[in-house]
Amino acid sequence: MPEKKNRLIYLPLGGAGEIGMNMYVYGYGPEGQERLILVDVGVTFGDMESSPGIDLIMADPSWVQARADRLEGIFITHGHEDHVGALGHLWPRLKAPVHARRFTAALAQDKMERAGLDVLEVRQEAPWPHMVQAGPFRVGFVPVSHSIPESSSLLIETPAGRILHTGDFKVDADPVVGEPFSPETFRAIGDQGVRALICDSTNVFNTHPGRSESLLAQPIRDLIASAEGMVVATTFASNVARLKTLAEAGRAAGRQVVVVGRAMSTMLRNAQVTEILESFPPLLDPIDAADRPRSELLVLATGSQGERRAATAQLANGRYMGMELKAGDMFLFSSKTIPGNEVAVARILNQLSEKGVKVVDESGGLYHVSGHPNRPDLETMHDLVRPDVLVPMHGEHRHLSTHAELGESRGLKAIVAPNGTMLDLAAETPMVVEHVETGRVYLDGTQLIGALDGVVRERLRMAMRGAVVVSIIIDESGRPLGGVWVEGMGLPDDPKLRDGLEGTLEAEIEAVLSRANRSVIGDDDALEELVQRTCSRLCNTTIGKKPVCRVMISRLEA
Amino acid sequence: MPEKKNRLIYLPLGGAGEIGMNMYVYGYGPEGQERLILVDVGVTFGDMESSPGIDLIMADPSWVQARADRLEGIFITHGHEDHVGALGHLWPRLKAPVHARRFTAALAQDKMERAGLDVLEVRQEAPWPHMVQAGPFRVGFVPVSHSIPESSSLLIETPAGRILHTGDFKVDADPVVGEPFSPETFRAIGDQGVRALICDSTNVFNTHPGRSESLLAQPIRDLIASAEGMVVATTFASNVARLKTLAEAGRAAGRQVVVVGRAMSTMLRNAQVTEILESFPPLLDPIDAADRPRSELLVLATGSQGERRAATAQLANGRYMGMELKAGDMFLFSSKTIPGNEVAVARILNQLSEKGVKVVDESGGLYHVSGHPNRPDLETMHDLVRPDVLVPMHGEHRHLSTHAELGESRGLKAIVAPNGTMLDLAAETPMVVEHVETGRVYLDGTQLIGALDGVVRERLRMAMRGAVVVSIIIDESGRPLGGVWVEGMGLPDDPKLRDGLEGTLEAEIEAVLSRANRSVIGDDDALEELVQRTCSRLCNTTIGKKPVCRVMISRLEA
Repeated sequence: MPEKKNRLIYLPLGGAGEIGMNMYVYGYGPEGQERLILVDVGVTFGDMESSPGIDLIMADPSWVQARADRLEGIFITHGHEDHVGALGHLWPRLKAPVHARRFTAALAQDKMERAGLDVLEVRQEAPWPHMVQAGPFRVGFVPVSHSIPESSSLLIETPAGRILHTGDFKVDADPVVGEPFSPETFRAIGDQGVRALICDSTNVFNTHPGRSESLLAQPIRDLIASAEGMVVATTFASNVARLKTLAEAGRAAGRQVVVVGRAMSTMLRNAQVTEILESFPPLLDPIDAADRPRSELLVLATGSQGERRAATAQLANGRYMGMELKAGDMFLFSSKTIPGNEVAVARILNQLSEKGVKVVDESGGLYHVSGHPNRPDLETMHDLVRPDVLVPMHGEHRHLSTHAELGESRGLKAIVAPNGTMLDLAAETPMVVEHVETGRVYLDGTQLIGALDGVVRERLRMAMRGAVVVSIIIDESGRPLGGVWVEGMGLPDDPKLRDGLEGTLEAEIEAVLSRANRSVIGDDDALEELVQRTCSRLCNTTIGKKPVCRVMISRLEA
Repeated sequence: MPEKKNRLIYLPLGGAGEIGMNMYVYGYGPEGQERLILVDVGVTFGDMESSPGIDLIMADPSWVQARADRLEGIFITHGHEDHVGALGHLWPRLKAPVHARRFTAALAQDKMERAGLDVLEVRQEAPWPHMVQAGPFRVGFVPVSHSIPESSSLLIETPAGRILHTGDFKVDADPVVGEPFSPETFRAIGDQGVRALICDSTNVFNTHPGRSESLLAQPIRDLIASAEGMVVATTFASNVARLKTLAEAGRAAGRQVVVVGRAMSTMLRNAQVTEILESFPPLLDPIDAADRPRSELLVLATGSQGERRAATAQLANGRYMGMELKAGDMFLFSSKTIPGNEVAVARILNQLSEKGVKVVDESGGLYHVSGHPNRPDLETMHDLVRPDVLVPMHGEHRHLSTHAELGESRGLKAIVAPNGTMLDLAAETPMVVEHVETGRVYLDGTQLIGALDGVVRERLRMAMRGAVVVSIIIDESGRPLGGVWVEGMGLPDDPKLRDGLEGTLEAEIEAVLSRANRSVIGDDDALEELVQRTCSRLCNTTIGKKPVCRVMISRLEA
């Protein structure tokens, strides 16, 4: 019997079809026996529209979980939540060693610790040319510039060829904190031959070359120097380079730097402990800030996306840690608004406007640069690496397909592989070999639940339609005892109803029960259906809605 | 006793503090006896974030309603939903004659008819220089260009001076359908002296001069001529000029024009009946379109904002009226995405990407122009009208305040007057004289409810936390009869609980009741509180959430 051919599989479980919850599987070996590694274990965030009450959303790891005995390791490219945020929640289902560089490892260990897991499962790795052996894979962390320090592309060596998984990156020769983008490194990797380039697609619609983080220093310095009152600046807490630029601009303008918001303090401390950050201006305790003239303060605040509980929202709404914004103060959004957060951010802009605070945002391009590669930067990466095949990742479908078109227009073979698409990169012509069912797992309070298991669907229905609960007691002889009790939840009343909606429902259900057949009254399912139908009909004709209806039938025992 | 001084009041109830639900009061007379007119009665739309299940949102008309005996008339500037959409819902509370020009009146009458009201309450008015007398006011409808035909600014003459209420407008010398912007008209009005300019602020952050609708004809014609498969274009249904431009470009490319979506058909029919639209290409019935080669079709579809039930969403998702999009087709968004709708629109873009449809949007500026005045256009209006005072309207707070700053920077006196701010424009120096409580009214099914009356708050709480209903029967002797029954709604289970969440709650509540004092069991409020506290504590320690808890206590009579 001939030996089965070895496959080199690529299987995105999250991140290829959305921006967020990254999770990519690579495998090598005979079909069905591939040894596996997992790249990134990220989250995305819920919203009221589709997932009310859900704290975090992650890719469903079932496919890997069912093959956890073949999982050789988990590799984390960088410390953003959409790459490492699910580690503590999903590791118990995967139980493989976690590899990351120092700063990222510290963040990953924090995730493990909060979940009560062993931090030693996370191993600190040196950067490429150091390679981590994981089954048939050798994996190197290739330093690359991004909007958080110490991001890495992964060079994945396999018996069937080499893969470059870019992770999130930008082409920045001077990222202020962390390693610059090194064209030489990526060219050298390309020189050795790359089978597949798995590549960030986030900014494929932006046609301008990406700009360097270092270009922001002067404009931010000028802006803060021009301010008269208190200056508050917000950005992504993990953008340590930006925090440094902002803080140094504040110091240059003779201001004390105050940091408010837990995420930012944690990130700064972590950057200092891991020696990512060589220097940072001294910080003033928020408690001491109240005593200083407001013209001598620069406040760095979390919450650039309008998060309700973050420092920015609280400052816009009123006071936070003894600080209060006033007319003549300045608020700088050194960040972009992620799609979906526009309304939350606008709420804050309006609150600041009401206070007479001067708001400066990134719309002029002076105070923020993106952490992802624009179209010309993607071309740079393609040209340096020269892969046999380009596989766009980290994007919605339109990003992936446009990135693929970009590659093809310049002579590359490209494959669009959204979540669940398994490619065999060892095949003579890399191609789709399987489609795997993928999904989402929700963190709801402390429980992990399936996105489609009905919990959230019921909440959405209650939110849209309200609910009615009907309590009925059936006596020993099988007749309704006393009155029916109806309780409405989240329902308007109809002023035209003399007894109100609940009273009218009670009377109507009682009337229907009095006419009902004994066999219906005796059967829980039939009785429930009758009551639900009655509720639905009456609510629809009175208030124009069909609420969720629950019937609680108590039968007294003879 | 000296006579009370006459006031000329301006009081926005909606539209000054948000973009949407416009409603402005003007009044003239002695304080507390002013005769009133109302300008516009618009809606805004609900969202899951703040108003799940709510169909429409409108300004609370209570202030006018309490003074409806002094209301001389309602004037509608144009037919957009945010200006006329609440008419049918709120007219019964106001009961004053409605004035509008022909096309707008037809739309207003439709609103009245759907609400079962007398369409004759809506009066068709000729444009300025015709003036409508309404108590002490004389009101003229001054034609102005906007993104719907027959928009008007209102020239409001009073014994204390003249007000120009711009309504929504743009500066467009060739708006394709409807009247052009006439600088001569506005200058002539300015020449006679204008006390106050109440002015659209929507686009104050855009620093480029607005572009003419007529500039789109050639690019759209070129685009559609370049297409090979089916072409579908979406825009706002009420943008009749755009529909004409698109349809004519389709015809020029040898395509039959198909309109899908009720709103668009209604708007076109209305434009034809009221003779706003002199010519429009013949339409092909959607049923007949299925037989035509797809390269010979141009489909105009509703739903440019990603509305789930509209034609665009259905076409992106699958089939609609027998039509289906395929690889090689083209989809044109001849519209901008209103903030808050980004995620819904992106969902459609991704579905189209999955089908291999080429998507063209307005980002290049070639296929859409705004209906509102950009900053240079605002300056044009200020310069033509030269008012004593500028009062920005139609904007969030940041738009109003930035518009005021713009006016002040060019020598105008300006007042920021968000909803509820009453100005006296007859005072020597126009100023704020009162603050009036304002709010929102929700249309929920068929009922109008107050935004703050608790219905929506309870729905939001159920959506975020889920709900628990507990049914307890107390027997004639005052003891719990049988077991407690717990029903969870929208709640996850905790796999660590042997009896599940509901079973565990039942056992815990029974245990608590068995230990409870008879006086607690005998008192509904005390018993309810005890059960709610038990639920909250147990849910929090098991699933990490505190659900809404309702307790239904049935007491059997002795």
